[in-house]
Amino acid sequence: MSAAPTHAVPTHLVLSLSCPDRPGIVSAVAGLLAELGGNITESQQFGDPSTGLFFMRVQVEVTAAPEALEAALRPLAESFSMRYHLDVVGRPLRTLVLVSTAAHCLNDLAFRQRSERLPIDVVGVVSNHTVLAPMAEFYGYDFQHIPVTKATKADAEAQLLALVRERDVELVVLARYMQILSDDLCRELAGNVINIHHSFLPSFKGARPYAQAHDRGVKLIGATAHYVTADLDEGPIIEQDVERVDHGDDVAEMVALGEDVERRVLARAVRWHAEHRVLLDGTRTVVFR
Amino acid sequence: MSAAPTHAVPTHLVLSLSCPDRPGIVSAVAGLLAELGGNITESQQFGDPSTGLFFMRVQVEVTAAPEALEAALRPLAESFSMRYHLDVVGRPLRTLVLVSTAAHCLNDLAFRQRSERLPIDVVGVVSNHTVLAPMAEFYGYDFQHIPVTKATKADAEAQLLALVRERDVELVVLARYMQILSDDLCRELAGNVINIHHSFLPSFKGARPYAQAHDRGVKLIGATAHYVTADLDEGPIIEQDVERVDHGDDVAEMVALGEDVERRVLARAVRWHAEHRVLLDGTRTVVFR
Amino acid sequence: MSAAPTHAVPTHLVLSLSCPDRPGIVSAVAGLLAELGGNITESQQFGDPSTGLFFMRVQVEVTAAPEALEAALRPLAESFSMRYHLDVVGRPLRTLVLVSTAAHCLNDLAFRQRSERLPIDVVGVVSNHTVLAPMAEFYGYDFQHIPVTKATKADAEAQLLALVRERDVELVVLARYMQILSDDLCRELAGNVINIHHSFLPSFKGARPYAQAHDRGVKLIGATAHYVTADLDEGPIIEQDVERVDHGDDVAEMVALGEDVERRVLARAVRWHAEHRVLLDGTRTVVFR
Amino acid sequence: MSAAPTHAVPTHLVLSLSCPDRPGIVSAVAGLLAELGGNITESQQFGDPSTGLFFMRVQVEVTAAPEALEAALRPLAESFSMRYHLDVVGRPLRTLVLVSTAAHCLNDLAFRQRSERLPIDVVGVVSNHTVLAPMAEFYGYDFQHIPVTKATKADAEAQLLALVRERDVELVVLARYMQILSDDLCRELAGNVINIHHSFLPSFKGARPYAQAHDRGVKLIGATAHYVTADLDEGPIIEQDVERVDHGDDVAEMVALGEDVERRVLARAVRWHAEHRVLLDGTRTVVFR
Repeated sequence: MSAAPTHAVPTHLVLSLSCPDRPGIVSAVAGLLAELGGNITESQQFGDPSTGLFFMRVQVEVTAAPEALEAALRPLAESFSMRYHLDVVGRPLRTLVLVSTAAHCLNDLAFRQRSERLPIDVVGVVSNHTVLAPMAEFYGYDFQHIPVTKATKADAEAQLLALVRERDVELVVLARYMQILSDDLCRELAGNVINIHHSFLPSFKGARPYAQAHDRGVKLIGATAHYVTADLDEGPIIEQDVERVDHGDDVAEMVALGEDVERRVLARAVRWHAEHRVLLDGTRTVVFR
Repeated sequence: MSAAPTHAVPTHLVLSLSCPDRPGIVSAVAGLLAELGGNITESQQFGDPSTGLFFMRVQVEVTAAPEALEAALRPLAESFSMRYHLDVVGRPLRTLVLVSTAAHCLNDLAFRQRSERLPIDVVGVVSNHTVLAPMAEFYGYDFQHIPVTKATKADAEAQLLALVRERDVELVVLARYMQILSDDLCRELAGNVINIHHSFLPSFKGARPYAQAHDRGVKLIGATAHYVTADLDEGPIIEQDVERVDHGDDVAEMVALGEDVERRVLARAVRWHAEHRVLLDGTRTVVFR
Repeated sequence: MSAAPTHAVPTHLVLSLSCPDRPGIVSAVAGLLAELGGNITESQQFGDPSTGLFFMRVQVEVTAAPEALEAALRPLAESFSMRYHLDVVGRPLRTLVLVSTAAHCLNDLAFRQRSERLPIDVVGVVSNHTVLAPMAEFYGYDFQHIPVTKATKADAEAQLLALVRERDVELVVLARYMQILSDDLCRELAGNVINIHHSFLPSFKGARPYAQAHDRGVKLIGATAHYVTADLDEGPIIEQDVERVDHGDDVAEMVALGEDVERRVLARAVRWHAEHRVLLDGTRTVVFR
Repeated sequence: MSAAPTHAVPTHLVLSLSCPDRPGIVSAVAGLLAELGGNITESQQFGDPSTGLFFMRVQVEVTAAPEALEAALRPLAESFSMRYHLDVVGRPLRTLVLVSTAAHCLNDLAFRQRSERLPIDVVGVVSNHTVLAPMAEFYGYDFQHIPVTKATKADAEAQLLALVRERDVELVVLARYMQILSDDLCRELAGNVINIHHSFLPSFKGARPYAQAHDRGVKLIGATAHYVTADLDEGPIIEQDVERVDHGDDVAEMVALGEDVERRVLARAVRWHAEHRVLLDGTRTVVFR
């Protein structure tokens, strides 16, 4: 799951990085980009005192080949103990979407992808059901039915992982996929799987969050997009949002209202991730919007 | 804690009621009001299938004395097993505000009260500290210092309750009062005490909610106004709202941002309660906004 | 464009009405419903002092035939000079959707309709272009291409009106239809055509609102759903909402962000209209949400 | 109106700058800061293609004296044709607040200032009325009554300007000051006067915006904080926000709801300005939040 740009000479690159904080990082990076004739068009930095980490995202127009930039970056990254990612601005991320029967998130992602509002390339839709096959096909996506039962779960995950590898998948989106990934798979794909949870985490973890929310009589319901980790519903949060409900909204109406928040929150998280705006900061995220 | 209107002939009354749901309630109430020459200016009804209860709030202009309306209502209420409250629209509720050292909620309530945006009459400000005495005095409120230690807690609550009785208090507002009321006091004042909790309940119950929120990396922080019950942080929710935070906001900044949500949420809850818009529906509330 | 319910015995009806305000309206309506054994499940009233009009919406469960209710209502409506509408709760409104080339509103309405989140029955999609034909077909809607040029405009409108009549259309939705309806057509369909305007009216009327918004440097962009009248962009507003933008958002990004607000605002307006929650109050609307 | 830091050795500085965009700016600035041993803790950049300008804000911890930084910056600024401002992070801006009779904005600013949520030093409150003198005094601010009539307007403005100079005022806040500043005064104080307008500009310019909003039947009301220019209600917008209203809200209720938005929007604009987060970009603003 990496992506050194291999296409024709690009003009616009995005570099995101994190490293232990210390003086001189911005200067070193900006200096390197200037030496290569780069023009910075957008940039954000943040030092987190609570983790001692420094984060940076920069968009730069260069005439040099990305490979030259890559080569110049490597020793710098090493000397600052950087984790970094260099990519072409707008290059679509190779994405696999996992769904069950709920259509709203798939429809929203697909529509945005097709409208060029979301820099992803959907290389496949996988489902443990078949009901969303027509929608996937309408959008021209390859649809794979991988049923999951207790007995076949390990096998199903193996198929999934094989698909990820075959298709060079960079991002997996759980778009209301109602199966829990095994710890092994979570570790294997760490940092590259985004899930949408239908509650304002950490409230109402686990099953039937809208029923829980209705019982508790909350006045806002929400949704949370987060990276998937082995620790269920506890992964680093990328984005959250809420919708107002009132006493007149029963569980079914909350579910309906919730669909709007879920798809909105998931679409934002996927877009920011695909634009390399999200960086891991321990159990939290830095989001350079 | 009740308030049959005893003043001069009013023109505008508000009736709020709840009872087991069955056909004919609206007709009976509207018929009674029509017989007395009343003109309904605003009205809302709601039947909750999950509790089987019916709720109604109606504002009516009458030329008859409120006592006549009261007398006509009584048998009707009995026949429908209604809980009801009849009051003059806009009559300020006799309110006691409890604070500790945080000023933002008191300042907000006081400013709104003085600007005639909040139909309450602040008959006293009680604090376990003295730091807010000047602010209370600036707004012309009587300030009472009732210190609370483990040893004096029972005695302090007795003083508080005596004050509630002496001053005919109808509403107690915990405006960031950092003491937990005893179960007995909660029961005694049930339905008439509003607390502001500095988190989006049920997330981050208990102490230091903003520190908990920062640790978890949430993207929105919130506040919750609820009726106080013996079950800490579990009382019926009246209002909630949220504010966006990002990776750059540390705990101190979350606390600062949170103050805005807290005061806004508390002010709304107090206003709706004082306008008789909030009705209890089991462990939830119906809010006729 | 009316709809006396003619189907089998319903259990749940919705009555919406407006009339000059005077005492006794609620009592008369509620009394009539009670006499017929109706149980009111939801109801809202509002008297507007600025226009002297009274508005009411009531949902009622009845065992009587709707025709009996209709018959009982007629003399009452006459005596109070009421405009009223009686319908079966949830009956889908026969709806014609007009589009040009932008897909986001059509996709959103269609997806909600198919997910049973929107009580409309799309009896046709009309466009002056052909690009959205596949999407209409995917959702199983009849697609009609009616091109419009200066020369053919009158003819095109005649075709449109014929379609409205043939298919017994109750609601026309202009889902980013980039043609201005003639005054005659506006009058003919008055109160039954909803348009989505891509600005927070009355700001940025007319063409290219996002470019205007960018020029002015506003910090929020918005959308407005309104009834269409002969007075362009001046019809009664049903719903509005906004989205935050910042200095980094150019016109193209505003257009992209705006699509989200547009479709959300239009979907709400169509839903409220189809649920008979929107009543005309002069040049404004009463919306019983 | 400038503020070269003259205090003891600071640790945390903020530099904000704008200049014609070209390659090498970030590198030059970051390099200079690195040479002086500075550690960048927060930074944002933005290049506006529509004006060809580049904007940067950087917070940096330095051990060198600010004067050394200032000296090093000067030639760099010249070579890039930069406008820049260097200041100590958190240094309170010397601020003059102008009011008439409405208290909500003054109360809000004062409370935030006293709670250390707003880095301003209120060096005076000026009013053409006397009603807010007690509030100003409660917060320990000097209150000046400068009445304004048609005849005395020029004289009143002269007094105001004298005050600005005597007290070394850096920022003037029109906190619902109901007088229009003369073109000369606007020019004199350009970029240093923030006004709160009680509508969502450009809608409802001029007088009685809430009455205009009610007439038009909008579903959201708003407020706009902007820099004052000679062109009334047309200055660069710093911040805007909205509040939902419905058919039940008459003009008086809109005014009351509007007060909440006004004070919130004004407080944000003043804070961002005082934190040197707002930069002028032609008739728009760049706000590095």
